[in-house]
Amino acid sequence: MSDMMWGGRFTKAEEKNALDFNASISYDCRMYKEDIAGSKAHAKMLARHGIISKEDCEKITEGLSAIKKEIDDGKFPFSIELEDIHMNVEKRLTDDIGDAGARLHTARSRNDQCALDLHMYMKRQIGRVAEKLISVEEALLEAAEKYKDVILPGYTHMQRAQPVLFAHHMLCYFAMLERDFKRLEECYDMADMSPIGACALAGTTYPTNPLEEAEELHFSKVYGNSLDAVSDRDYLLQFLSFASICAMHLSRLSEEFIYWSTSEFHFIELDDGYSTGSSIMPQKKNPDMCELIRGKTGRVYGSLIGLLTVMKGLPLAYDKDMQEDKEGVFDAIDTLYFALDIYAGMISTMTVNGKHTREVLEHDFSNATDMADYLAKKGLPFRQAHAVVGGAVHYCIEHHKVLHDLTMEEFKSMSPLFEEDILEALKIENCVKNRESYGGTGPKSVERQKAHGKEAVAAMKEKAAQWKESMAFLG
Amino acid sequence: MSDMMWGGRFTKAEEKNALDFNASISYDCRMYKEDIAGSKAHAKMLARHGIISKEDCEKITEGLSAIKKEIDDGKFPFSIELEDIHMNVEKRLTDDIGDAGARLHTARSRNDQCALDLHMYMKRQIGRVAEKLISVEEALLEAAEKYKDVILPGYTHMQRAQPVLFAHHMLCYFAMLERDFKRLEECYDMADMSPIGACALAGTTYPTNPLEEAEELHFSKVYGNSLDAVSDRDYLLQFLSFASICAMHLSRLSEEFIYWSTSEFHFIELDDGYSTGSSIMPQKKNPDMCELIRGKTGRVYGSLIGLLTVMKGLPLAYDKDMQEDKEGVFDAIDTLYFALDIYAGMISTMTVNGKHTREVLEHDFSNATDMADYLAKKGLPFRQAHAVVGGAVHYCIEHHKVLHDLTMEEFKSMSPLFEEDILEALKIENCVKNRESYGGTGPKSVERQKAHGKEAVAAMKEKAAQWKESMAFLG
Amino acid sequence: MSDMMWGGRFTKAEEKNALDFNASISYDCRMYKEDIAGSKAHAKMLARHGIISKEDCEKITEGLSAIKKEIDDGKFPFSIELEDIHMNVEKRLTDDIGDAGARLHTARSRNDQCALDLHMYMKRQIGRVAEKLISVEEALLEAAEKYKDVILPGYTHMQRAQPVLFAHHMLCYFAMLERDFKRLEECYDMADMSPIGACALAGTTYPTNPLEEAEELHFSKVYGNSLDAVSDRDYLLQFLSFASICAMHLSRLSEEFIYWSTSEFHFIELDDGYSTGSSIMPQKKNPDMCELIRGKTGRVYGSLIGLLTVMKGLPLAYDKDMQEDKEGVFDAIDTLYFALDIYAGMISTMTVNGKHTREVLEHDFSNATDMADYLAKKGLPFRQAHAVVGGAVHYCIEHHKVLHDLTMEEFKSMSPLFEEDILEALKIENCVKNRESYGGTGPKSVERQKAHGKEAVAAMKEKAAQWKESMAFLG
Amino acid sequence: MSDMMWGGRFTKAEEKNALDFNASISYDCRMYKEDIAGSKAHAKMLARHGIISKEDCEKITEGLSAIKKEIDDGKFPFSIELEDIHMNVEKRLTDDIGDAGARLHTARSRNDQCALDLHMYMKRQIGRVAEKLISVEEALLEAAEKYKDVILPGYTHMQRAQPVLFAHHMLCYFAMLERDFKRLEECYDMADMSPIGACALAGTTYPTNPLEEAEELHFSKVYGNSLDAVSDRDYLLQFLSFASICAMHLSRLSEEFIYWSTSEFHFIELDDGYSTGSSIMPQKKNPDMCELIRGKTGRVYGSLIGLLTVMKGLPLAYDKDMQEDKEGVFDAIDTLYFALDIYAGMISTMTVNGKHTREVLEHDFSNATDMADYLAKKGLPFRQAHAVVGGAVHYCIEHHKVLHDLTMEEFKSMSPLFEEDILEALKIENCVKNRESYGGTGPKSVERQKAHGKEAVAAMKEKAAQWKESMAFLG
Repeated sequence: MSDMMWGGRFTKAEEKNALDFNASISYDCRMYKEDIAGSKAHAKMLARHGIISKEDCEKITEGLSAIKKEIDDGKFPFSIELEDIHMNVEKRLTDDIGDAGARLHTARSRNDQCALDLHMYMKRQIGRVAEKLISVEEALLEAAEKYKDVILPGYTHMQRAQPVLFAHHMLCYFAMLERDFKRLEECYDMADMSPIGACALAGTTYPTNPLEEAEELHFSKVYGNSLDAVSDRDYLLQFLSFASICAMHLSRLSEEFIYWSTSEFHFIELDDGYSTGSSIMPQKKNPDMCELIRGKTGRVYGSLIGLLTVMKGLPLAYDKDMQEDKEGVFDAIDTLYFALDIYAGMISTMTVNGKHTREVLEHDFSNATDMADYLAKKGLPFRQAHAVVGGAVHYCIEHHKVLHDLTMEEFKSMSPLFEEDILEALKIENCVKNRESYGGTGPKSVERQKAHGKEAVAAMKEKAAQWKESMAFLG
Repeated sequence: MSDMMWGGRFTKAEEKNALDFNASISYDCRMYKEDIAGSKAHAKMLARHGIISKEDCEKITEGLSAIKKEIDDGKFPFSIELEDIHMNVEKRLTDDIGDAGARLHTARSRNDQCALDLHMYMKRQIGRVAEKLISVEEALLEAAEKYKDVILPGYTHMQRAQPVLFAHHMLCYFAMLERDFKRLEECYDMADMSPIGACALAGTTYPTNPLEEAEELHFSKVYGNSLDAVSDRDYLLQFLSFASICAMHLSRLSEEFIYWSTSEFHFIELDDGYSTGSSIMPQKKNPDMCELIRGKTGRVYGSLIGLLTVMKGLPLAYDKDMQEDKEGVFDAIDTLYFALDIYAGMISTMTVNGKHTREVLEHDFSNATDMADYLAKKGLPFRQAHAVVGGAVHYCIEHHKVLHDLTMEEFKSMSPLFEEDILEALKIENCVKNRESYGGTGPKSVERQKAHGKEAVAAMKEKAAQWKESMAFLG
Repeated sequence: MSDMMWGGRFTKAEEKNALDFNASISYDCRMYKEDIAGSKAHAKMLARHGIISKEDCEKITEGLSAIKKEIDDGKFPFSIELEDIHMNVEKRLTDDIGDAGARLHTARSRNDQCALDLHMYMKRQIGRVAEKLISVEEALLEAAEKYKDVILPGYTHMQRAQPVLFAHHMLCYFAMLERDFKRLEECYDMADMSPIGACALAGTTYPTNPLEEAEELHFSKVYGNSLDAVSDRDYLLQFLSFASICAMHLSRLSEEFIYWSTSEFHFIELDDGYSTGSSIMPQKKNPDMCELIRGKTGRVYGSLIGLLTVMKGLPLAYDKDMQEDKEGVFDAIDTLYFALDIYAGMISTMTVNGKHTREVLEHDFSNATDMADYLAKKGLPFRQAHAVVGGAVHYCIEHHKVLHDLTMEEFKSMSPLFEEDILEALKIENCVKNRESYGGTGPKSVERQKAHGKEAVAAMKEKAAQWKESMAFLG
Repeated sequence: MSDMMWGGRFTKAEEKNALDFNASISYDCRMYKEDIAGSKAHAKMLARHGIISKEDCEKITEGLSAIKKEIDDGKFPFSIELEDIHMNVEKRLTDDIGDAGARLHTARSRNDQCALDLHMYMKRQIGRVAEKLISVEEALLEAAEKYKDVILPGYTHMQRAQPVLFAHHMLCYFAMLERDFKRLEECYDMADMSPIGACALAGTTYPTNPLEEAEELHFSKVYGNSLDAVSDRDYLLQFLSFASICAMHLSRLSEEFIYWSTSEFHFIELDDGYSTGSSIMPQKKNPDMCELIRGKTGRVYGSLIGLLTVMKGLPLAYDKDMQEDKEGVFDAIDTLYFALDIYAGMISTMTVNGKHTREVLEHDFSNATDMADYLAKKGLPFRQAHAVVGGAVHYCIEHHKVLHDLTMEEFKSMSPLFEEDILEALKIENCVKNRESYGGTGPKSVERQKAHGKEAVAAMKEKAAQWKESMAFLG
């Protein structure tokens, strides 16, 4: 009990199972850099305002640097009895430097210290996730460039709908991830607010300056209400919402890669480096990475609903339930980081069977809309044109044909508006080329998207570099 | 089958149970204003580019106005056979005005039409939710003003921690909702992007101009990729994330109001207008509204996880699963709208028992931190000061005293550093008054928060007014 | 306020928005049969024990019968002011028959009354869901019989793995739904416990007999603790868990039907009666029902997480949050009921392209395991046999062959153990026929499964008939 | 690549990040006992049917025993390259004993092996959780006995409702956990089904006998369909549903312990061994364990929704997504196990302030129902009696009285039916004593519940002992 920082009024030590249950050191040790940097800034601020002496401040700073080095080197003996990273560091500091260490916790509490560490940690991790997200964006742009002439069937309801450029399809995912990056920026903005100075819940009677401390730690904002500073976990929920949506996007791409890799579709071939085999079936080459990432969507959703559940109905200011805020978020960071990393490599190395995707379009009705448009442009109301083509499709199915196999006689029997140029309109290449409406799959529209994409990537990279630089002081 | 807009290739009508299951008119009729406005803008754009004639455009516009009036008046006969609001309106239009109506669906599809309606609907509803959110913010500010001298115990772990101003407590919720408003703005920004022109999935061969159409409908942006335009539901997920976090905030306030209303706490009295009784126990006055709102957090979380589940693993571009995007979102809008409305009234009408909240502080240890600070300021390292006060609390509990009951002799026996001014430091009013650190519960800090709050409300109101005006054209 | 059953101590009526928010009549009116039957049984029991007179009991019974008829006929004027079904019925009864009606609420409370109604309602609905679940089981058995000779590729990781009988595949879903039925029985067992007699929370001072009342209402058990009786919602959570798992099973079948319906797979053709078309693309025939049902998995999961969230951290005994217990459950009942109904019809009417599914197996490596087994049976350790066949597959891919195209020379070069009978072992029909291990895809194994299936269906039908009969008294 | 068991057809090794992402050894090593026992049983069965030689079987058995010992002793070098526990063990076995090891994987696949291990693991863990659940049941019974005379206010809506026995309150939780045990039995029954023999998905061509193998491993049932055997995860979802409901129950008890521990309620005092202090506020004694357990409800819910999400829409038979089935389940097992363990200790060591809980009842209206019952028993219709008492409460509040303070004159003025014996009826002890209805809070009813509880515990213990014995062979 003598090791505990809070035992004064207690007559009995904590039970062993309670102590184990209570301890968070096994996962919050991840935040040691943040914890140490925070304590240094705190000591500096206390000294600047005469709350501790300059000598004490120097001792603290040196002591903390020594501890950081020991942790960096993997030699620090973490203790479950000391519950968490904050106590592990502080206790050791006091053992090393005496009274000066015991003065460090002046004008702060574990409540604001723990919040501070987590805010900084999130800022650092958001930067890392951003880099990986950008690498997927780049891979998508490259694939759009590399396979710029590839046409494949576009689907709705998993039924072939209209031909689209493969590049257009890739750029749709680019657009999704671009929105994800925007949401990530909003997460960063929420994380970038310093809670230090709130102390336990009500602020402090010391003449401190939390704004100085925040600036030292590269925060752009400070909480305006101390109760809020220690009880707010919105920035984590917002990150988990971002992560859930981003994981959902990857799950959609995974689904497509998985069925594109089937014998039946055969649209792409994943690199052997991102595939695995079977212990019993020697012929198998499985798109395991896609499946795993699709599956891991579940754990991200689970972490989101987990923390939402934790926070439901909690009274102000701090409740111990909130200790459950970290593991799910840490897991979501790791999951997303690695999933993005793998996707960047997988997209770069896959092969698209462009010849095959083009061929299959010869044998289906993906050009039916163009046939209806043809009639509508000749004056038939679209709804009636739609009905004519519906009948034509029905006729073709019964006669084992597709639309571009019909004879002019057959065309004419369906509508007198058909003329020779209908065959031109039905050519797959033209179906694509003619869709130059804004955002459409026409080649010029796709070029415009790529140009935008390049600019967007440059801007994202700049932002991510700023974030990285801003947290570089953590060492 | 003759009524169906897509039946050309089919030889058999849809089964009755399938048809019922498929139909969405029972809930998507909510979007009739958006659907009609969208169709008018579409007709106008088609006419401007010579795709339909001006006469047809006029007929369409008039026909749609007549239909809108009929729906406004509650006289429109919606039909399940026609599946959804889009088909109900279009079929009727064609019945009313003939071929011109059948031309309206040129260069668009239900996929982009349905997305368009939902984008506009969300913009309108976000505006309505914003107004209610602001009304709660105002009620919180007023309560902070009205009860500005009230001191109550601040809690951590539901144990009394330190005295705080009631206004400070209210302003913590103000800060949470202020963040919610920011998230709502981000939702609006995501919703404010027009999908029209994407058609089924690939754009169109007609010389349309989706940017004009978007401008006509007061959108500030247009989707750059047609596949994305019809398959994106991020803006709904982002709204549900916002709604979940906001509902969570209300659940926390509810929890506090519920226990503050117990006989044991007796901190507040809710107005009879927001309370109910019991069918068997005549004495009961229950904080039903708070409980219901705390409970309804569950349905909002459920809608979020519901739509995340729907979207997981869906291939591009449109899948019918996405029809499940509306009910949960509509329910979340209603739930939040009414919950905020009730909270505004409930906060305005409640009574705070300030005398009682002050009295209870005489009988507890909420000033223990101030006692430790006292010693630390006299030079004792904080950790040692903490231990001294821990011992003092233990001593008091055994002797049925509180800290400010101790005699100077007792104080001295605990630490020679104690002098007469300790009693001043332990006064509850001083505990509050001395916490003037940035964001602390001191009166000046709280005044600063209120001043900020007033500015923030003014800015929110301006934004909400813009949103409202922007959607006023819907009628 | 005069209409309220609980207003005695109040000085002011409920606010309009609070009243609307509070009212549950819009959805709990579904339970009117249960409410009325429960009140009749209560009156009977009260009379039997002399707590009310026989005359009063008769008046109550007649009065309730008249109200039931009026609701049956759709003529009863439900009132939001009266909050819920219980108050609507009781108030009207008192208006109709006077004091006798006012005596009905003796020795009960809305808390146990509301719980009673919901228990009975769940028992009735579980019976209805069971019937539909059985109808899908029958459809699966029929399909297994109808297409008993059809062989199709079995998949793992969506890659072709080994040939299986189509019947075997259908019977896998049979087995899943059989487990669902078992879970449904467990739900019924949990619902089949009467809470009446618990009153508000603590039982009653009247000489009642809740066991008689329960028996009258066909319950097999009674809650042994009154606090538990009014605060337990486990039976609803258990139903939602069942519903989530069952919906998940349907989502898996939906996924398979969706990709089997693609042009690429072309394994099945869904009936036109269960398909829909496109408003823009005349050729489309979409498996909408499968997509919708896959999507609706989300709403069922949402309802589960919703109620789990509601119940988290609620103190005993009754809290108003619990009013949120019904809508999600009712929605899950409807969703599952209709989804099962549609699946029964969709399976019965679909066409399996057995010729095609067999043909595709000629062109792949689904028989690779059999080749490895061949070698292993000749003494090569399986791991080495696996490696040999892995090499053979690699060789074949490079030479555009499949395994059964290899010459004996090629076989021999891969392993001297190969002899002429290898070709027999590689025949697709033999791959299936030789898998007669318990539970395997061999025809005898499949026949055994069908025989079991028929017995299981008979037993399920008997159980469902009992449930139906047991609730028939509700009328 | 040479280490991989499936690399035959591959030309390139797996990328490092893919390999790390793919590996599950870090958590599935938990199942080493099951994996080794399963392999021994498999070898035995293969030998019995002449598929491998007796000598090979002996070598395998001895080799596996040696590996088990090494893992038991913490000396086994697990390898990430070998992906999972199955490959780690098999590769090592083959290194140790040569060809015999390479024959072990005959007539099985990782798909059924992995399912087998998990089934056995769940059976073992369900037994462990059961033991802890029973220990909480015993603690609740003991508390009911120890404090059998304690009366406290019963609440609805957190408002005082009627007095109840503390024992009655504890026994309500007993009843909840009793249902949890029933659900746990159902989970065991679902887990207790052997998948071995399904091989990859379709069974095997070898003359195996999966029933023998299942019996050897103490399974009572075998999957009847091989596709089902490898793709079923219902038993895990059912466990997570059980765990979610059980965690929810603990969250309710936690909420009550937390507010009972406040200064305001002061109903119980938790032992110092289960409480913690504050780093800044020396007076704090926080019910951390209750808060943590309430919070951990979130992670259990998250794991449930996580796995439901994983399984949604997965085609048969095995998809890699399913590898995500373990971590959430393992976490839920640990969470529940430790939470139950702590609750057993916390209930046993807490102190109930029975004197205080009784005293507070003197100052409230918890006996109002008894006053209404009094009038109703004298013939006044209950609804009118309810109104009279509602008025009395209102009168008392205005006159700062409670009901038992009223003079006979005041009583009479409210209703002429009141006589002297009303005061007897209003005595708190009588309010409890008179509620002897079945399940009520009367002392006899509570004794009956305790008697039932003892029997139930005995039956649970027997069941748990059977489970433990059944898995003892794992070592």
